Amino acid sequence: MTVPTWVEGAAGSPYDVDNLPYGVFRHASWDGEPGRVGVRIGDQVLDLAPVAAADMLEVAHVFEAPSLTPLLALGRPHWHGIRQWVVSLLTDPAERELVEPHLLPVDEVVLDLPFEVADYVDFYCSLDHATNVGRIFRPDGEALLPNWRHLPVGYHGRSGTVVVSGTDVVRPSGQRVSTGSTTGDVVHAPTARLDIECELGFVVGAPSTLGEPVPADAFAEHVFGVLPLNDWSARDIQAWEYVPLGPFLGKSFATSVAGWVTPLEALEAARVDLPGQDPAPLDYLRVGPGAGYAIDFEVLLGGEVVSRPPYASMYWSPAQMLAHMTVNGASLRTGDLFASGTVSGPEREQRGSFLELSWGGREPFGDGRTFLEDGDTVTIRATAPGALGGRIALGEVTGTVVPAR
Amino acid sequence: MTVPTWVEGAAGSPYDVDNLPYGVFRHASWDGEPGRVGVRIGDQVLDLAPVAAADMLEVAHVFEAPSLTPLLALGRPHWHGIRQWVVSLLTDPAERELVEPHLLPVDEVVLDLPFEVADYVDFYCSLDHATNVGRIFRPDGEALLPNWRHLPVGYHGRSGTVVVSGTDVVRPSGQRVSTGSTTGDVVHAPTARLDIECELGFVVGAPSTLGEPVPADAFAEHVFGVLPLNDWSARDIQAWEYVPLGPFLGKSFATSVAGWVTPLEALEAARVDLPGQDPAPLDYLRVGPGAGYAIDFEVLLGGEVVSRPPYASMYWSPAQMLAHMTVNGASLRTGDLFASGTVSGPEREQRGSFLELSWGGREPFGDGRTFLEDGDTVTIRATAPGALGGRIALGEVTGTVVPAR
Repeated sequence: MTVPTWVEGAAGSPYDVDNLPYGVFRHASWDGEPGRVGVRIGDQVLDLAPVAAADMLEVAHVFEAPSLTPLLALGRPHWHGIRQWVVSLLTDPAERELVEPHLLPVDEVVLDLPFEVADYVDFYCSLDHATNVGRIFRPDGEALLPNWRHLPVGYHGRSGTVVVSGTDVVRPSGQRVSTGSTTGDVVHAPTARLDIECELGFVVGAPSTLGEPVPADAFAEHVFGVLPLNDWSARDIQAWEYVPLGPFLGKSFATSVAGWVTPLEALEAARVDLPGQDPAPLDYLRVGPGAGYAIDFEVLLGGEVVSRPPYASMYWSPAQMLAHMTVNGASLRTGDLFASGTVSGPEREQRGSFLELSWGGREPFGDGRTFLEDGDTVTIRATAPGALGGRIALGEVTGTVVPAR
Repeated sequence: MTVPTWVEGAAGSPYDVDNLPYGVFRHASWDGEPGRVGVRIGDQVLDLAPVAAADMLEVAHVFEAPSLTPLLALGRPHWHGIRQWVVSLLTDPAERELVEPHLLPVDEVVLDLPFEVADYVDFYCSLDHATNVGRIFRPDGEALLPNWRHLPVGYHGRSGTVVVSGTDVVRPSGQRVSTGSTTGDVVHAPTARLDIECELGFVVGAPSTLGEPVPADAFAEHVFGVLPLNDWSARDIQAWEYVPLGPFLGKSFATSVAGWVTPLEALEAARVDLPGQDPAPLDYLRVGPGAGYAIDFEVLLGGEVVSRPPYASMYWSPAQMLAHMTVNGASLRTGDLFASGTVSGPEREQRGSFLELSWGGREPFGDGRTFLEDGDTVTIRATAPGALGGRIALGEVTGTVVPAR
């Protein structure tokens, strides 16, 4: 990739040819037509279907779908081949005549949910987050539970309520202990502790066979790419419901994901070693050097940065999440989504949830903030080192809280 | 329905015209062809697609699918109309010439998974089961947790590993505390405490809108029908992993469902009042008389009945599960599946799991049994009062344990 792109304004930008995330887009002028697959370059979206058809690409049909699912199902050799083809389209001046008519300004398109989510699993992989939550909820006990350093703790979330960036989030109502009640009165009311969780999501492409675990070193064979994810949480509903079967309605009302999926290949320059694991994990959870990612998040509330969680601080790697999720023989499907859990670093200004930023609501932050108010807009964005020496952007996930119905 | 069916052997059987469950079948002679929708009558399966085409039914296409999903998506008025049409086909002697060539012996067909599972939610609605589990795991504490009588506790399971009756279950391996270890050694090993859970599953047909709760009294507008379900569980894996985010790998390796889905309309004669709820539930969880079902289960191990769990003893009703699952605005999709949790009655011989039958493995039952061994076959079947005065069968769910890989 030493030849620069001919696309104006793209070279040196966060969406240069070392990035190239995929999404499902619709142009403003398409009246009710379904979306199709595009790739982002600079401030433009390349409409891949007509270019692939003109090039008579064997897999051209996958770009005509209103979902990345057919592309995800192709598997790693095709993912690599398609990426090389896109790079050549965008760097070879001889391709310009064919390609340029199919570039659309990104501000003229709408992004849809990039794929139908099969199963959604959320992990709990940040040592700082787990420690903070333990200290907030069990101030007199051990901050970490006994299993935490032995396995990446996870649970299934609701895949039917995963929504694309930009979707409003209705403040959920539910059953919780009445605010200020000293007698534990239980009420049905809107949440008073609406929160975010800044996370990284991993998108599964290649499926696996029921009964056969997927080893950690097969991570890149199965996982297509990543996206920023906001796991909206109603802390009061969650606190009342979650013993003994885990979070349910405190999370299931909405999970927002970015519209762009960044392929793993774009993150090769971002790979870093894990901070260290003690005790050493069991054999099926062993990973080599470079199992982590130096992805830097920013959490914005109303346009102001309120936190900068560093993904490099995560204790458990995504390859370990994948190996653990399938160690019992559970199979993968194209479109499975698993997420890291809240990314929090060791510093206060690196915490990835309002629960932690406000220390359980007891220490307001910023301009006196504890939890989310109606009308608040939260945006999570991320960048990582790219192959060309600059930083690539991982898209962003945004959502606005609207009042309870 | 006073006119008897003309199908030989069907009148008075557990699959008379007051039952009529739907499934997706393939005939042994169909070489690799996909399945299509059939309805069971007596010991035969009616191939609905050619009959509907001949009758020029407006919705005939739904029977050509290899899944009940298009039928589920039609909604309640169509479900009712189709059932009336099937009853007339099977009771009007004038229809016999058209219909009879499309009846196939049930022992010549294979049933596929009846629909693609969207989200799978498992509840915990039996007071006896929750009390038993509490006593087994917390012998010195309160058997019931504080939230149990206020809401139907539930969590999301893995929809991608829901399998149809007859599918072998590979003994799962995973992380657990070493058997007999007094020092809490953690190992990666096959489960030593493989269990079943006898449950009733509810199949969602009509979807709902994100952000809008579904009230309890809209139950029959959204839920198409029921099926017996076995929520296989690895108790040692579950015990080590489940705090604080709930069951994950202890359950996600397999959930078996019957191939026949019995429509709610067939269960009208089985409706009974709930045993009673104290305290009275919050408004959004209020239900009227007849919210329960007098469905009787049998659990068979190697062909011998080891338990007879009574569904009529369940504390929380399915309409309450539905209202609770959506109270936060979580939307329903066609193909969502939610299950009751283990059905256990008050008597020892009514317990719906080996965990309870063997009281945590400490009191072997039957011929010295505690948990499942390789080669064991478990079958769960159920019957209910039908509209014609007899009992209808709800199909059955069976599976055999094969050794860990």
